[in-house]
Amino acid sequence: MADQYARTGEDKRPHEIPAIRWEEPPEGPVLVLLDQTRLPAEEVELVCTDAPALVEAIRSLAVRGAPLLGIAGAYGVALAAARGYDVDDAANALAEARPTAVNLAVGVRRAQAAHRAALAKGGGAGQAAAAALAAARALHREDAEASARMAEHGLALLDELLPGGGHRILTHCNTGSLVSGGEGTAFAVALAAHRAGRLRRLWVDETRPLFQGARLTAYEAARNDMAHTLLTDNAAGSLFAAGEVDAVLIGADRIAADGSVANKVGSYPLAVLARYHHVPFIVVAPVTTVDPQTPDGASIEVEQRPAYEVTEVSVPQVPVTGAGGGVPVAPLGTQAYNPAFDVTPPELVTAIVTEEGVVSPVTAEGLAELCARSRRVTIG
Amino acid sequence: MADQYARTGEDKRPHEIPAIRWEEPPEGPVLVLLDQTRLPAEEVELVCTDAPALVEAIRSLAVRGAPLLGIAGAYGVALAAARGYDVDDAANALAEARPTAVNLAVGVRRAQAAHRAALAKGGGAGQAAAAALAAARALHREDAEASARMAEHGLALLDELLPGGGHRILTHCNTGSLVSGGEGTAFAVALAAHRAGRLRRLWVDETRPLFQGARLTAYEAARNDMAHTLLTDNAAGSLFAAGEVDAVLIGADRIAADGSVANKVGSYPLAVLARYHHVPFIVVAPVTTVDPQTPDGASIEVEQRPAYEVTEVSVPQVPVTGAGGGVPVAPLGTQAYNPAFDVTPPELVTAIVTEEGVVSPVTAEGLAELCARSRRVTIG
Repeated sequence: MADQYARTGEDKRPHEIPAIRWEEPPEGPVLVLLDQTRLPAEEVELVCTDAPALVEAIRSLAVRGAPLLGIAGAYGVALAAARGYDVDDAANALAEARPTAVNLAVGVRRAQAAHRAALAKGGGAGQAAAAALAAARALHREDAEASARMAEHGLALLDELLPGGGHRILTHCNTGSLVSGGEGTAFAVALAAHRAGRLRRLWVDETRPLFQGARLTAYEAARNDMAHTLLTDNAAGSLFAAGEVDAVLIGADRIAADGSVANKVGSYPLAVLARYHHVPFIVVAPVTTVDPQTPDGASIEVEQRPAYEVTEVSVPQVPVTGAGGGVPVAPLGTQAYNPAFDVTPPELVTAIVTEEGVVSPVTAEGLAELCARSRRVTIG
Repeated sequence: MADQYARTGEDKRPHEIPAIRWEEPPEGPVLVLLDQTRLPAEEVELVCTDAPALVEAIRSLAVRGAPLLGIAGAYGVALAAARGYDVDDAANALAEARPTAVNLAVGVRRAQAAHRAALAKGGGAGQAAAAALAAARALHREDAEASARMAEHGLALLDELLPGGGHRILTHCNTGSLVSGGEGTAFAVALAAHRAGRLRRLWVDETRPLFQGARLTAYEAARNDMAHTLLTDNAAGSLFAAGEVDAVLIGADRIAADGSVANKVGSYPLAVLARYHHVPFIVVAPVTTVDPQTPDGASIEVEQRPAYEVTEVSVPQVPVTGAGGGVPVAPLGTQAYNPAFDVTPPELVTAIVTEEGVVSPVTAEGLAELCARSRRVTIG
């Protein structure tokens, strides 16, 4: 079951409102999520006491973003274990809540494996639940550290590609502290450039249909005092044509073994525009986003979401009128094509920035080497 | 002054609700517009009794679309003349109401010239007003005829480029009977393909920020029983990548002498995607859209519209909450880049279809020849 309450106080900075946190009130452990569907109008927290509530929060996009989904999934397993529910059932439901983001299943399976291993060693339910929680916390901590390292590698790459400084960066969707245990992926790189005095402007794609750019990235940019300008996704072409974009920085939901990148729908058109205008197109994502089990772009399952996300506009302040809970913009009954993601082939990606380093050019060999290095580090 | 009333009766077909009509009730002549900002939720007509009301209707996009703006501008001059206002003042205000659409000024100047010529011939105010109205009516009629000829030329071109039939056409913004004295420009070609049994699907870009695709093109497609699917503008990339687009058909607001095409923002990214995927990119516009006074794309003035169109979503059914009259989607005070149009260079345009024929490849010479032919026809 989920319950929610609104934060008071306008002076809270985003790092004071974590996107996710584990709490242990006397009534039993809970997972507290910042409800991202209500931002920026309201800062409302959603309290999950079991895995089905978390599955619902994942599906409704109250919690979203590849790295954060992994953390949420791991905590969800820990929650099921701590509350005495069937851990494998919970893990399966969580892992399947959204099909495209590989991090979700990776996080879920990691906590589940820790839980199983503790049981196999003869630990009781309490010890196994503690092991699942420890695994979730470790993932959370590692993700924050990975953010910092991605930001460092990404900024070095920007400085190398664009020696003049004064970077004008275009980004899509939302990839900051709302999707991460730390400061995010692509957004963390832009933030690092800002802190180093080398961000001239962050161009923020509004990111239809759910406006993650307008609602969330503009919110995070404003809170960090970054010079930023919002635009409709289709106005990016004019910026490229005017020479106003020095680099595109995006995150990723899944990277296939060949370097194909699944990310929020609208990323691929930016990649084509960037290529046409000779602008670097840079993907920033933790190594866990690379899925060696997915050989290529064609093998990536792209989630199709409901038509009402397109035919209606959903804004939290507005009374429900349409079937999808939003305000209709298209005639009743209009059919819509609504893929959540698109796939950019490796030949259009200038570089993939991870916490373990940068792969450029993007090749299967380069990615495999990076993943092997990451595994050595993890094992060591 | 403008007044409005809602139509009753759900069974009216779009050709029964003209986008524009001249009426002469006993109180004096009026120009009646279908308020396009209220579609598809409501079919409301806006009654203009003077030029300032029409200027306001043009600015607010209650009346819009390059060919229709020309007709509206001409009727506006006739209205000022019939009501005894200063015709030159009215003409200037109307011609400048929106800067990018060349047809608007062309229509205004044509009615103004007819008015002047009648005065110069010694006709009184009444005769001059009648001459202005006759010019507006002639433009209206010619536009309807031009629509039919563009549809014919456009369909022949499609059949030539795509001999298999079963066309899957992607379109942007709204170019049907709502923007025309007839059935429109790009939409008229798709409609001709539909009537000929050769339209497999019309892909309708929603067209942010004002949703002309979702609100108006989906409405017109449904009313004509065309197979159509709505998508966010940024999802077009996925359709191209999947091989689901056979041709792009768009209108134009101004075509420079070199063949550069100014059209609704989002057209240029489609042109780049079409080129990358070897898909024909076809512009459909009357010859009056070609402006020999504008040498090239860089000389086209692109209208920048208010930020609130991007930071707020404006939907007629919803109570006003934001400064721009809509519901905020971005944090208060967010800066936005909001060009109404973008410019596609001639090398990305496969063909320009006009009522006088098709220019392909798109060259300054080809366009000049077409314009010369058009003038000969008009004079003859």
